[in-house]
Amino acid sequence: MEKPFHRRDLLGIRDLSADEILGILDTAENFREISDREIKKVPTLRGKTVINLFFEASTRTRTSFELAAKRLSADSVNVSVSTSSVSKGETLVDTALTLDAMAPDCIVVRHGSAGVPHQLAKISRAAVVNAGDGTNEHPTQALLDAMTIREQKGSFNSLKVAIIGDILHSRVARSNIHLLTKLGATVKVAGPRTLLPPNFVHLVEEGLTVADNVEEAIEGCDVVMILRIQKERQDSAYFPTLGEYAIHYGLTQERLALAQKDAIVLHPGPMNRGIEIASDVADSARSQILDQVKYGVTVRMAVLYLATGGKAVNS
Amino acid sequence: MEKPFHRRDLLGIRDLSADEILGILDTAENFREISDREIKKVPTLRGKTVINLFFEASTRTRTSFELAAKRLSADSVNVSVSTSSVSKGETLVDTALTLDAMAPDCIVVRHGSAGVPHQLAKISRAAVVNAGDGTNEHPTQALLDAMTIREQKGSFNSLKVAIIGDILHSRVARSNIHLLTKLGATVKVAGPRTLLPPNFVHLVEEGLTVADNVEEAIEGCDVVMILRIQKERQDSAYFPTLGEYAIHYGLTQERLALAQKDAIVLHPGPMNRGIEIASDVADSARSQILDQVKYGVTVRMAVLYLATGGKAVNS
Amino acid sequence: MEKPFHRRDLLGIRDLSADEILGILDTAENFREISDREIKKVPTLRGKTVINLFFEASTRTRTSFELAAKRLSADSVNVSVSTSSVSKGETLVDTALTLDAMAPDCIVVRHGSAGVPHQLAKISRAAVVNAGDGTNEHPTQALLDAMTIREQKGSFNSLKVAIIGDILHSRVARSNIHLLTKLGATVKVAGPRTLLPPNFVHLVEEGLTVADNVEEAIEGCDVVMILRIQKERQDSAYFPTLGEYAIHYGLTQERLALAQKDAIVLHPGPMNRGIEIASDVADSARSQILDQVKYGVTVRMAVLYLATGGKAVNS
Repeated sequence: MEKPFHRRDLLGIRDLSADEILGILDTAENFREISDREIKKVPTLRGKTVINLFFEASTRTRTSFELAAKRLSADSVNVSVSTSSVSKGETLVDTALTLDAMAPDCIVVRHGSAGVPHQLAKISRAAVVNAGDGTNEHPTQALLDAMTIREQKGSFNSLKVAIIGDILHSRVARSNIHLLTKLGATVKVAGPRTLLPPNFVHLVEEGLTVADNVEEAIEGCDVVMILRIQKERQDSAYFPTLGEYAIHYGLTQERLALAQKDAIVLHPGPMNRGIEIASDVADSARSQILDQVKYGVTVRMAVLYLATGGKAVNS
Repeated sequence: MEKPFHRRDLLGIRDLSADEILGILDTAENFREISDREIKKVPTLRGKTVINLFFEASTRTRTSFELAAKRLSADSVNVSVSTSSVSKGETLVDTALTLDAMAPDCIVVRHGSAGVPHQLAKISRAAVVNAGDGTNEHPTQALLDAMTIREQKGSFNSLKVAIIGDILHSRVARSNIHLLTKLGATVKVAGPRTLLPPNFVHLVEEGLTVADNVEEAIEGCDVVMILRIQKERQDSAYFPTLGEYAIHYGLTQERLALAQKDAIVLHPGPMNRGIEIASDVADSARSQILDQVKYGVTVRMAVLYLATGGKAVNS
Repeated sequence: MEKPFHRRDLLGIRDLSADEILGILDTAENFREISDREIKKVPTLRGKTVINLFFEASTRTRTSFELAAKRLSADSVNVSVSTSSVSKGETLVDTALTLDAMAPDCIVVRHGSAGVPHQLAKISRAAVVNAGDGTNEHPTQALLDAMTIREQKGSFNSLKVAIIGDILHSRVARSNIHLLTKLGATVKVAGPRTLLPPNFVHLVEEGLTVADNVEEAIEGCDVVMILRIQKERQDSAYFPTLGEYAIHYGLTQERLALAQKDAIVLHPGPMNRGIEIASDVADSARSQILDQVKYGVTVRMAVLYLATGGKAVNS
């Protein structure tokens, strides 16, 4: 299976250089104003096919990719597969090969298991974009977070970022830690001990610190990134109750006051108000949560454009 | 959150003046022949985005809105949310704000609770179109019924309309009562006492009468509008059995013979043949049921056009 | 209900003459290179509406039809109906009439019961394309199989084809037997006795033989067509275990060695590797399984084109 020379997968932030990351962000800047226009559509990807292959449900991410494709005039086809039905018959590889045989230009894939996008990228002629794979990576989320941060802060150099919550299971945290440290920011993480990876030495070398508590992580930081508590994890006894989580780790105005005066707040959504984030924080002027969603479409337009052979602005 | 000046929500018929209703119908007339053409597509809404946000499943209404958007060249994205999954996490408002941040021009929303579209309209920059909210309103259904009636009867003035069935829970009835009385028709309703609202005084003032039985409502009328029996209500003991409902309230040829000779029959679908409507009535020349579906696409084209900034014919 | 003069249903291969089949294949040849282009889209069906009405889930077939429609610039709308919800209310005919009233040009229908597409074709103005009806026919599958065979073998005359598996319940087998015998091939079928139709006399006259065992069917053949084992049938005791099925009927390299040296292998997917087909056979150079998928899109482009009034190449 030969890949066309111009195919460019986006499997994770880990594989990218700082220059490549900035190239994607600069390309996204070019697509930025399309969603503000009266006519929100350009012919850039006319006649290209994008398949959204989702093994996990995600209204938000799927809709964002679908809109990104449509605003570039690509044909967008949604394929939702429940993992249970897959396990009954066809292998994952055969599902992917089958879709690839229909000649899409790009397959956007979300799957509950880490590494699935990488596996698909090896066998498909289509470009593969990772829309979240297990606890591994969610690269377009980190890119849209970066676009939001750059918009507010100008650059990443010497920027202090706190990431609060379930670091262990969060692909959002993982992609963001890679991206932020590559671009020169320093990252402090905090959360329940049971939800912090046991061995962070490798990452610490890259500019990551594990804080002893939420207050220490937030103190003096420029960006507070809150992770979503996945309620289904509660059964696994990672933390006692949602109420206690809110008390010890939730972002309140009091905790936020420890950060820089112009610090901003990010959350990948969907939010559990009153648990990981207080409602008044989510609705405050510091919250960039809706801008994150807005730049999500923009960043995905850039990613689809680059994946299907477009040239990055800085390349 | 500033709304663009040209945004026009359609939340219910109750809020509209007779002139506004006629303006929508006149605008719909202009879109009418598009669906009869060899090439059923005009570029009117190219580059506009319509999100169909359905919290209740509805093949018929969702497909009608999707076709209306596509025939106007808008990009149409379907988002289905089961209410159960919403209750698990994100608030309704956050779901709406998230979608709105993706810069749609119009959000078409169906929800099991009354008032949800109004709530969304307050917070979204996109125009909001109500595709059915609980037992409150279903304005595009009333508009397509009106288009069907006007096609057959010419005008609404002095028109006698009978509405038969579960008036209490029917958003279709509610929207139609508002529309028909505003346009000068007189409306008689009939159905099981348990399924008639306890206090109709307000509406009676507008030209509504509650008939003692189905025969009285139908006698001499120009239009018989049959409501769908929602079988799941049967458990609530609103009426004894479906069989008895059919005997006492079902529209048969005998009952229809009491109406004007040229009376027409409407039903919003999906029909329970043999229960609220006899099969031979549904298939008779008097039945306008398929024309209702046809005009549904037309009326929704007009509504999407007006919601996204188009000018009404008579404005 | 008058059908437009140019409407052309595709209900089954049984109704088609050899010339008509070849006409569809020749038309498909004309659409073939579109999916290989940089811009995979032609305006042929711009402004036409195709509804994919699926009463049975099928990612593969639905996606293939959707891509075929989009590559021809038709508007494609998906309607999934679970048979259970249909049985609760609206009749199948009313569902079809409702969709037809929205003025689609073509309804692609899949249903668990044989004959549903024929029933729909009688009542709809739209052209009806059968995407699989119960155990009856799956004509576009047979056409894509034929396109794959013709590509490899040049013609069908005197071609020897073995079909292995659950012949009794397979609409794929039924459509292929009709097609192959009409075009002059000879067909041998083999499988568990319980899964062979009790009376094949009619078909045998057309050039079909029932082999005593898989080896006899495969010996000297040019094409081996493997059917999917539907695991849910196992409960019905048609065969003891999946393991025994694999031993007695699975296509292994040993069994394939009995065929012509240049024999090809087909499978309609999704595959149960290690059951009806050994993994090394599925991945071998003889396997045309991914070409079948690829030609699936091409054949469906031709079928949609012809159904909506296009002229066949040889007509």
